[in-house]
Amino acid sequence: MKFTCTQLALVKAINTVSKAVSSRTTLPILKGILLEVNDGRLTLSASDLDLSIQTSIDVQSTEEGKAVVMARLFGEIVRKLPNALITVKTDDEKLNIQCLGSDFNIVTLSADEFPVIGGVEAKDFIEIDKADLCGLIRKTVFAASIDEKKGILTGTLMNFEGSNLELVALDGFRMAVARNTVNSTLNRRIIVPARILFEINKILGEDEGSDQVSMAIEDKKIEILTEDTRVIARLLEGEFIKYREIIPSSANTTVIVAREEILNSIERASLLAKEGKNNLVKFDIKAGSLDISSRSEEGMVNEHVGAEVTGKDLVIGFNSKYILDVLKSISDEEIKFEMGSSVSSCLIKQVDGDEYIYLVLPVRIAV
Amino acid sequence: MKFTCTQLALVKAINTVSKAVSSRTTLPILKGILLEVNDGRLTLSASDLDLSIQTSIDVQSTEEGKAVVMARLFGEIVRKLPNALITVKTDDEKLNIQCLGSDFNIVTLSADEFPVIGGVEAKDFIEIDKADLCGLIRKTVFAASIDEKKGILTGTLMNFEGSNLELVALDGFRMAVARNTVNSTLNRRIIVPARILFEINKILGEDEGSDQVSMAIEDKKIEILTEDTRVIARLLEGEFIKYREIIPSSANTTVIVAREEILNSIERASLLAKEGKNNLVKFDIKAGSLDISSRSEEGMVNEHVGAEVTGKDLVIGFNSKYILDVLKSISDEEIKFEMGSSVSSCLIKQVDGDEYIYLVLPVRIAV
Repeated sequence: MKFTCTQLALVKAINTVSKAVSSRTTLPILKGILLEVNDGRLTLSASDLDLSIQTSIDVQSTEEGKAVVMARLFGEIVRKLPNALITVKTDDEKLNIQCLGSDFNIVTLSADEFPVIGGVEAKDFIEIDKADLCGLIRKTVFAASIDEKKGILTGTLMNFEGSNLELVALDGFRMAVARNTVNSTLNRRIIVPARILFEINKILGEDEGSDQVSMAIEDKKIEILTEDTRVIARLLEGEFIKYREIIPSSANTTVIVAREEILNSIERASLLAKEGKNNLVKFDIKAGSLDISSRSEEGMVNEHVGAEVTGKDLVIGFNSKYILDVLKSISDEEIKFEMGSSVSSCLIKQVDGDEYIYLVLPVRIAV
Repeated sequence: MKFTCTQLALVKAINTVSKAVSSRTTLPILKGILLEVNDGRLTLSASDLDLSIQTSIDVQSTEEGKAVVMARLFGEIVRKLPNALITVKTDDEKLNIQCLGSDFNIVTLSADEFPVIGGVEAKDFIEIDKADLCGLIRKTVFAASIDEKKGILTGTLMNFEGSNLELVALDGFRMAVARNTVNSTLNRRIIVPARILFEINKILGEDEGSDQVSMAIEDKKIEILTEDTRVIARLLEGEFIKYREIIPSSANTTVIVAREEILNSIERASLLAKEGKNNLVKFDIKAGSLDISSRSEEGMVNEHVGAEVTGKDLVIGFNSKYILDVLKSISDEEIKFEMGSSVSSCLIKQVDGDEYIYLVLPVRIAV
């Protein structure tokens, strides 16, 4: 194998596939990147078995072939080289990397041991706008559980219902639902590990190709294709929570507030809340205003936020982290809180529109 | 006590004095900032007993007085407030902080317990250009020992010799000497803890006042004064190493290289060196060129650097960290290495000029 390309192109490709390199694996080969040269294209592959990523770049090549190198070392070397032409070639059991005055020879692993990244035998196929997909992911994945023991709650549901796609994540304390329209007639529910959707969002965010991505879905995996990059993710198996049934349909108190103002107020209130238990902040809702307060042995704080309140006065407590996560994942200027009582779940919604619904359970407070 | 000022001015003042707040102290009062209002000025003070910092800002004040608040919490609160007018007042045992809709009441500590930051009874007094002093500090402090058990080696010598000021730091493996001219006739040697000079460099770098700073020196402490800020540092006692005696006066091999080029080359060579012992990189010096190499079980690297070599060929090994620290602390385009043999110390100097001399001990290598 021998190829020449620019440092910049190679760095980008390494950064893309490195998201699938396992740092904690006991299988050394999974710490590697597979380099393959064919027909003037270099393909880089990495896989942690749950997530596999392949990306290709144009190279000048005089010899086809393949090799596996340690991802961390190869990435560090290429990132530190100047942005000039790099020539990479296999040489016995080593990979030789040359760039201006630099000459590296690094150990390779056996390319035969690298896992085969099979394609998806697509039964279902859908095209989706890249920015729309990223938006749905960003609005939901943070609400999934990060506790590996929680099984299905570590996943994000992708619910394809004809021209409507809904992503849903929940961890038992809060839930995120985000919607968008898609050009599809597909009816199918799949559950993708939230951790993997998080990486996919990063890959798509850095991808400079077409605005559209393709998704191919089969029973146990999903494939996401951009112009140069292919991502294959293992799906979670099991039944997702009947999430629509837990969304309250009526509210006694509705509050419309400026998102950034309440975000800053809750962040300040959290400075004292975090010292106590549950990051507890108290919302005191009266006609025309919202007071957010918290206290600890270090002191107390009251934040007064202008608000459009309809319905009953209400005092309700929250874990500030759950509210902040929501407020940081959306960008609307104004948002709406809908609450039933101090012990029932609170909804955070768009003021006009239904692009998202967040549900946050309150924390019981001694009033 | 009651005062009003802008959030921005208060944040800057808190950031300045926070550098003297001890994070590891067992005395709670030393985690505090003393606030004092007098004559329309707010003075903030902090001290870890080795280093004390006071800074003042103009405020609107209706009531003089003082209070001590926890530095971390007070800083977090003020930094999170919007850039608007903040009103701060004492209220019983609490400090009340108001800014637009925000209202904080935080615990205070007894101002009487706060250590008195005495002035320096100056016998010796000197004015120095702020940028010159910062330059001398940056060029030397990194070479001091960070091992508290090393006593005098954790300090930086300030050697005032009439119109010449020399700063010197060394840790037994390398030494840094930096020089500048000063408008002074003082002859005196003092040793300032390197950790404290590092903080002083940061304070002076952020200081927006006059280009000149004053220093007042007495037997056990030094005071550095800018327009608004006063820093008092405890000096180290003891005899500093006779540093001039360990600088070789002749060389067998001299190498002139582009600083940034060799810096990048050594950084790349270190990618493999750091896996082994001592960050060992090998310099192979021949007429007209310098090859830098290293190897580990992961591979090997050779970096070819164009160089102007005079004298004997030489193969010599270094701990790359010690050379990199030097190359990062200076800004000249070209620098000069002077070496006697593979087992004697290497000097790094200006090509023309004597603003600095660095000495680095080689690592013995099996050639």
